[in-house]
Amino acid sequence: MSNATIELLESHRSDRSFLATPVSEDVLAQVIEAAHRGPTSINAQHISLVVVRDPGHRARIAEIASGQTWIGKAPVFITVVVDFYKTSLAAELAGKKQIIHASVEGFAAGAVDAGITLGNLMIAARALGLGIVPIGGIRQDAQAMIKLLDLPPLTFPMVGVCLGYVDKPAQQKPRLPIATYRHDETYKKAHLLEEITAYDKELMAYWRAIGRTDGLPWSANTANAYQQVYFRKTAEVARSQGFAFEQ
Amino acid sequence: MSNATIELLESHRSDRSFLATPVSEDVLAQVIEAAHRGPTSINAQHISLVVVRDPGHRARIAEIASGQTWIGKAPVFITVVVDFYKTSLAAELAGKKQIIHASVEGFAAGAVDAGITLGNLMIAARALGLGIVPIGGIRQDAQAMIKLLDLPPLTFPMVGVCLGYVDKPAQQKPRLPIATYRHDETYKKAHLLEEITAYDKELMAYWRAIGRTDGLPWSANTANAYQQVYFRKTAEVARSQGFAFEQ
Repeated sequence: MSNATIELLESHRSDRSFLATPVSEDVLAQVIEAAHRGPTSINAQHISLVVVRDPGHRARIAEIASGQTWIGKAPVFITVVVDFYKTSLAAELAGKKQIIHASVEGFAAGAVDAGITLGNLMIAARALGLGIVPIGGIRQDAQAMIKLLDLPPLTFPMVGVCLGYVDKPAQQKPRLPIATYRHDETYKKAHLLEEITAYDKELMAYWRAIGRTDGLPWSANTANAYQQVYFRKTAEVARSQGFAFEQ
Repeated sequence: MSNATIELLESHRSDRSFLATPVSEDVLAQVIEAAHRGPTSINAQHISLVVVRDPGHRARIAEIASGQTWIGKAPVFITVVVDFYKTSLAAELAGKKQIIHASVEGFAAGAVDAGITLGNLMIAARALGLGIVPIGGIRQDAQAMIKLLDLPPLTFPMVGVCLGYVDKPAQQKPRLPIATYRHDETYKKAHLLEEITAYDKELMAYWRAIGRTDGLPWSANTANAYQQVYFRKTAEVARSQGFAFEQ
């Protein structure tokens, strides 16, 4: 097989400097077909995509995601929808009552498969020369996304991605040391604090190198975000769509 | 870029006929490094991997996942762990109190990023000539996985993957029609039942073609699984690890 794929994965970066250059239907179809072949839990295929090209709709999504202007600029936005509506039709056809959507397990399976799908969309797009940026910020107001995309009950717009050609590729941000990520046989806690402290310094050096004066150490940035529920309405909207977290 | 990547994504299949041939440390390191470069929500990097090579441990995981014997055969098993323990250390360093893990939003972000990671592991492995099969079945008894891998609080073993060289590549199962997957601008419900019915027939023809006599139509198979919470203890174990789904 090809090391081009490994290089593509290792060079992952989020791009935001999108050009107006359109994405052809042929390229988009290849990206979507590649994602469509990804696996899903028990082959339930509980994922759907909504492709938005309409500039007015993209401007609205940019607003929903707290003013991420690149959503308005990139010619294509794809929303990855966890879709237990489609499987509920399967249950109807088989004369059964679907209950999975009301459980933590159902939500977990749907969210993991949304992640696999998002990953495949990003890799396929980059393999075809496009730039991408994943957008969790649609969960900031998932109800507005549901209205805009006309999503049925038992679905949830989990995450999205901008696709387009880019002006200049973004820099690649350093990651936490691999020793905090890979564990062998069992999880090792002993050196984590030390590794995180080293990474905080490395990330600050990176911010300085690219001239970003508001960059924080990883621990401070993560702590700021995680001392709150930063997309506050995820639970409320998921519950109103039928995801009950009952057990 | 390379169409080899598109071909790889479009040829996705789950392999189960693993050979005893070992996976070298060099190949494994490349696979893990590729996954490590994937994006995470707000760059929180709330994912860890636990690599299991030990045959006794793999046999135990096969048992936990309801007797999936291929886990015992493939030389490497990787568990993708949602890890809010690591981020809680960041909060500690920054003198803040982490609350994200107690929310649906935190669980959603962690599960999506586990999916991106799983996808990257699968693609990188296949790019290097390995076969893979994703394993959600570790959630069948997530508590036993936590014990085996010595996972700390605020973590959850979301999904796993077998890696190894394979004897003969598996067949590729047909997917639901693309018209049930891709929607443009808004979600279209009108033709879903019709498309599902057509797919049920296509899948039955596939089962017959590969000589599998216990194969069910997609709708019946999905309905059977989803009329219950098929991994029953996901919620209970997640809650005991600190994922409260409070809001």
